[in-house]
Amino acid sequence: MAAPGENLRINGDRLWDSLMEMAKIGPGVAGGNNRQTLTDADAEGRALFQSWCEAAGMEMGLDTMGNMFARRDGTDPEALPVYVGSHLDTQPTGGKYDGVLGVLGGLEIVRSLNDMNIKTKHPIVVTNWTNEEGTRFAPAMLSSGVFAGVHDQDWAYAREDAEGKSFGAELERIGWKGDEEVGTRKMHAMFELHIEQGPILEAEGKDIGVVTHGQGLSWTQVTVTGKESHTGSTPMPMRRNAGLGMARILELVDQIAWSHKPDAVGAAGHIDVYPNSRNVIPGKAVFTVDFRSPNLSVIEDMEKRLRDEGAKICEDMGLEVAFEKVGGFDPVEFDKDCVTAVRNAAERLGYSHRDLISGAGHDACWINQVAPTAMVMCPCVDGLSHNEAEEISKDWATAGADVLLHAVVETAGIVE
Amino acid sequence: MAAPGENLRINGDRLWDSLMEMAKIGPGVAGGNNRQTLTDADAEGRALFQSWCEAAGMEMGLDTMGNMFARRDGTDPEALPVYVGSHLDTQPTGGKYDGVLGVLGGLEIVRSLNDMNIKTKHPIVVTNWTNEEGTRFAPAMLSSGVFAGVHDQDWAYAREDAEGKSFGAELERIGWKGDEEVGTRKMHAMFELHIEQGPILEAEGKDIGVVTHGQGLSWTQVTVTGKESHTGSTPMPMRRNAGLGMARILELVDQIAWSHKPDAVGAAGHIDVYPNSRNVIPGKAVFTVDFRSPNLSVIEDMEKRLRDEGAKICEDMGLEVAFEKVGGFDPVEFDKDCVTAVRNAAERLGYSHRDLISGAGHDACWINQVAPTAMVMCPCVDGLSHNEAEEISKDWATAGADVLLHAVVETAGIVE
Repeated sequence: MAAPGENLRINGDRLWDSLMEMAKIGPGVAGGNNRQTLTDADAEGRALFQSWCEAAGMEMGLDTMGNMFARRDGTDPEALPVYVGSHLDTQPTGGKYDGVLGVLGGLEIVRSLNDMNIKTKHPIVVTNWTNEEGTRFAPAMLSSGVFAGVHDQDWAYAREDAEGKSFGAELERIGWKGDEEVGTRKMHAMFELHIEQGPILEAEGKDIGVVTHGQGLSWTQVTVTGKESHTGSTPMPMRRNAGLGMARILELVDQIAWSHKPDAVGAAGHIDVYPNSRNVIPGKAVFTVDFRSPNLSVIEDMEKRLRDEGAKICEDMGLEVAFEKVGGFDPVEFDKDCVTAVRNAAERLGYSHRDLISGAGHDACWINQVAPTAMVMCPCVDGLSHNEAEEISKDWATAGADVLLHAVVETAGIVE
Repeated sequence: MAAPGENLRINGDRLWDSLMEMAKIGPGVAGGNNRQTLTDADAEGRALFQSWCEAAGMEMGLDTMGNMFARRDGTDPEALPVYVGSHLDTQPTGGKYDGVLGVLGGLEIVRSLNDMNIKTKHPIVVTNWTNEEGTRFAPAMLSSGVFAGVHDQDWAYAREDAEGKSFGAELERIGWKGDEEVGTRKMHAMFELHIEQGPILEAEGKDIGVVTHGQGLSWTQVTVTGKESHTGSTPMPMRRNAGLGMARILELVDQIAWSHKPDAVGAAGHIDVYPNSRNVIPGKAVFTVDFRSPNLSVIEDMEKRLRDEGAKICEDMGLEVAFEKVGGFDPVEFDKDCVTAVRNAAERLGYSHRDLISGAGHDACWINQVAPTAMVMCPCVDGLSHNEAEEISKDWATAGADVLLHAVVETAGIVE
């Protein structure tokens, strides 16, 4: 099949206008969005997306997890579709682009192909995956996970929010539970455009991130137990300070991550000490160590060193320590051909680019288990995401969608 | 004046029975007490104490801060009284002995002198200081502080609890606001018996702590500011991890305290990181460093090193840091003659003893500013206090009250 010509471009103004229009639904309190999954705002956003898809001549499919599939036919009735999409749901204090850019970028591709009257051999299906964020119903990437067979649908339906409402009941309540059995669709390929949610592209002045891998993740919850005692009346040699043990393990975590540079990372974002009183030496510290690497053996090594060397630190201080693995997934290696299609697209369009490893989880990470998949990333200001102040420029969004267009069209095949 | 004879002893069983009887008022949920200041339970405890004092032939005085003064007359109408006491209020999850032993130990002295028909030259006044704990109305040692002129009474009245009720209004409500102007009483001396609230006496097998000094305290609230960012998508060199900066300052605090061994101590009991999410690198860490020493110049040096070296740590990590002094008091040196009276009493009675520096604040620390003062300490199990599981033995309580008796009687003068 022929590669699309350099002159093939999406309409950046139209894409931007659609992003701004969608952002009016479920506004946040500080300029961003609160359009959490399976809320009334989510239903309203879905309806707007469907109306736009239908106006672009697409037909909407809906599966039993509420995943939306807007189809533009191809010329070959036997050819499997090329999927493109992401998610419309947001964090409670989320931005206007995380996920949304990938869905409306997919829509913009179809609109542009319509404008240019270009047909593809394979159909193109623009997808909105339900509950990517996972803040209302844990875990994240829930419905793409069910689609890929990672999670069981009944288990997913039973997930509850903080008020005890279930995913299944809320999906029915908002009217977006379909009849199509989840996971039965076969894909020729899947592409996801997403903001980086990290600082690398902006810092290096690159337009495009070609995502080659998704980092694997390991969450270990560490509980250090010492002895609550008075900060005044307990001499230094008689202290069993769980907070100090935690401090030394946090330093260890940093050292371990640096020892696997440049790709591994490690830190603790969640830290609680007990009883957390100014004049009581902490008797207990609970914190979660987050290690990530694109290399499974590196993750395993980091976990082992945390347990071995962390135990030694605590033993030397007269502290007890327990390690519990509370989360994780293996590294993802995206499909080489799909990745090459993304890199070629950036080259062809003259956008500066670099290979990236995705540090966050995405729907594409699960779909990669059942179909050839890759991701395109564009910069975001200051690496900021999951925050109402999340920002990108129209130029960045346009470049990302241009690359998505070329990668999708090259994969779907232009019919001359 | 003559020293009391070796055979002069309090009644340990009666003291213990009174401790157990008082503990029935404001019971905790786990075997201890919740008899917080100016609650109905506090009023009930005060009434019981008053009834016991009156039964022992004493007359009760009550000042405008609710401080209770039960007087046993001396033989010399010109002699100033020897005061003895502590506090009946407890922590919300407090023990049966913290404070209570000092008040009921004072009562037991008078009961024993009555039994033995011993008269003293100076009157003896058994005191219950209002709101020593400070958990309902901060700060601790509030009413002894007003008595000693450290705090203004109107300011004390305006202190509010978590529900917005004021100290002044609650003192009136429970019916224990007196007419006597606070702080007008003159004292010949003041003695306070208290449990150690630390592990030293038990660990060394000593019956009695002769308290020579009260440690000075310095609380510095440290705010480290970095940048909230994604734990996955932020490369190690681009992180500004406020939690890691905090960990390094906690290590520094430990080093600083050890550098002034054996008497100085340092730790952080209160630690909060923000946003405290497993996949967000902390953008802010707030924690309070507690330094104590019996030597003011040591406290000043520790504060300075924390600020200088803490600032250097943060500068090297690209973090901002702010230090705010949020609490403190100068070291206390108790009256040499009163301390000698306590040490002599332990010697005379054959109790093992050692000099102690009080790590916690006590009413005696403020009263020492207006009258010759000293403290007697007895061990507590495992150094545990401010906890319902706080425990002492009847023998320890008896030994402490015996020493208190001898110190008080030697100071008040036996009339032969």
